[in-house]
Amino acid sequence: MIRKLCIIGVGLIGGSAARRARRFCEEIVGIDADPENLRRAETLGVIDQGCASLERGVAAADFVLIATPVGAIEPLFRALAPLWRPDCIYTDVGSTKGNVVEAALRVFGIVPPNFIPGHPIAGAERSGVEAADARLFEGKRVILTPLPESAPDALARVEAFWMHLGARVERMDVGHHDEVLAATSHLPHVLAFTLARMLGRKDEQAEIFRYAAGGFRDFTRIASSDPKMWLDICRANRGPLLELLGEYETALREVAGLVRSDDADGLYACFSEARAAREKFLKSTENNHA
Amino acid sequence: MIRKLCIIGVGLIGGSAARRARRFCEEIVGIDADPENLRRAETLGVIDQGCASLERGVAAADFVLIATPVGAIEPLFRALAPLWRPDCIYTDVGSTKGNVVEAALRVFGIVPPNFIPGHPIAGAERSGVEAADARLFEGKRVILTPLPESAPDALARVEAFWMHLGARVERMDVGHHDEVLAATSHLPHVLAFTLARMLGRKDEQAEIFRYAAGGFRDFTRIASSDPKMWLDICRANRGPLLELLGEYETALREVAGLVRSDDADGLYACFSEARAAREKFLKSTENNHA
Repeated sequence: MIRKLCIIGVGLIGGSAARRARRFCEEIVGIDADPENLRRAETLGVIDQGCASLERGVAAADFVLIATPVGAIEPLFRALAPLWRPDCIYTDVGSTKGNVVEAALRVFGIVPPNFIPGHPIAGAERSGVEAADARLFEGKRVILTPLPESAPDALARVEAFWMHLGARVERMDVGHHDEVLAATSHLPHVLAFTLARMLGRKDEQAEIFRYAAGGFRDFTRIASSDPKMWLDICRANRGPLLELLGEYETALREVAGLVRSDDADGLYACFSEARAAREKFLKSTENNHA
Repeated sequence: MIRKLCIIGVGLIGGSAARRARRFCEEIVGIDADPENLRRAETLGVIDQGCASLERGVAAADFVLIATPVGAIEPLFRALAPLWRPDCIYTDVGSTKGNVVEAALRVFGIVPPNFIPGHPIAGAERSGVEAADARLFEGKRVILTPLPESAPDALARVEAFWMHLGARVERMDVGHHDEVLAATSHLPHVLAFTLARMLGRKDEQAEIFRYAAGGFRDFTRIASSDPKMWLDICRANRGPLLELLGEYETALREVAGLVRSDDADGLYACFSEARAAREKFLKSTENNHA
């Protein structure tokens, strides 16, 4: 049970958490950089009350969920520092975790024991509080990346929070989290953005999009994601992302080489291996929902 | 009205055409390299009769639909050459058209006036006659690439055939077709295969697939496509595909450069342009179904 939940950043993730957390929170207060958005969240009944002041918003809260864009975390930590209370639990939802830990170190000198970095692997190319959905986290994984200095009690309470939201909680090392997500999420987004942009320019010269089918629609779905959010993520997770972009370039050159040399056996082996890998992925996510 | 429709290659495309063409064909005969598959097509009622002999299959047919894999077209033309009849209409469904025209030139010396190259832009990562669906072509585009020597009557009959299957028929230059499809279909498939393969290898070392979400699932859906079919397509459309692979590599290096130099404005502009391009694509396909 939470008495006062304070959600900083009432977008898709913050709003969806609020919709489900109602069941076990006495009061939900929202804070948002955009007063318009905060009013909408209030009107939609996602939060009980929007609060223009960070100070009043977090006052007497026993649980603070930071759901701002990844790039906003450090200035937010700075603003929160003088308001930080040992009797409150703090967590965040950022898609990258190394940058959050570094920001905490810069601002607090340590990662506060009552702050547990977290990342719900859920979302959509939709964004904004209007898309908030109480079932967004159901059956989804939430990765927490606690540190040696994290308080066991804080970790337990953040785990319980996400479990109440229907998620499956796992713990992971900060660095490993950022590498895994760079591979399964950040890299595919950059690849899709790059293709959509390149073909958009071709489409200007000669209509090509009208001849694209369902495969193309699915392949580029993530290119409809929020550019600002993905700018933040790419900057925050630059190291692992750049490494993977390099690996992908190499892999692509290898496949292009097989096409160029008309190496039928090589190409067949390559496509078969790819299909087998995807079947394996499908199986592993089936288990997700088991 | 067709008296005897002969479908060579009774897989997803050939089978789906058969299911819908029943309505305006007196008899549908199937030919397939795989006798097992042919029996299944018969058992499922997709075709009236499977025929082990090409000669008997096409005898007295007034419409022949070639729905074999792209790589099988030239040997098939060779086998059909002595059986070719001027009072029959021939068309194909290959995803690439330049190679079909070249194969015809090599076998017949000309592109027979009663052969109209075609390509229905429909399909799925599923394959095989079991997946045949009478509504597969509904609202979908079919591109015909007639040549100057094509007979207007043959073209009109092939157009009518596809319209009866519920498709929207368009004409396009052979070369332009192959460039457009390389961009909207062949390139995305190669990109998805390459990613699925690369991440499959990473997953061997450390589980990463279990942390992949819906975006990844959609992005890699086309990597579940039939490797043999895509091997054929990549070989058949090598020229345009290689050119686009080169362009994509350049585009990706540019984006990687923006990440490396932490160019926030550049990245934001790039992702925004990508999103706008995809919105444009979505609009253009909305019109597809209008």
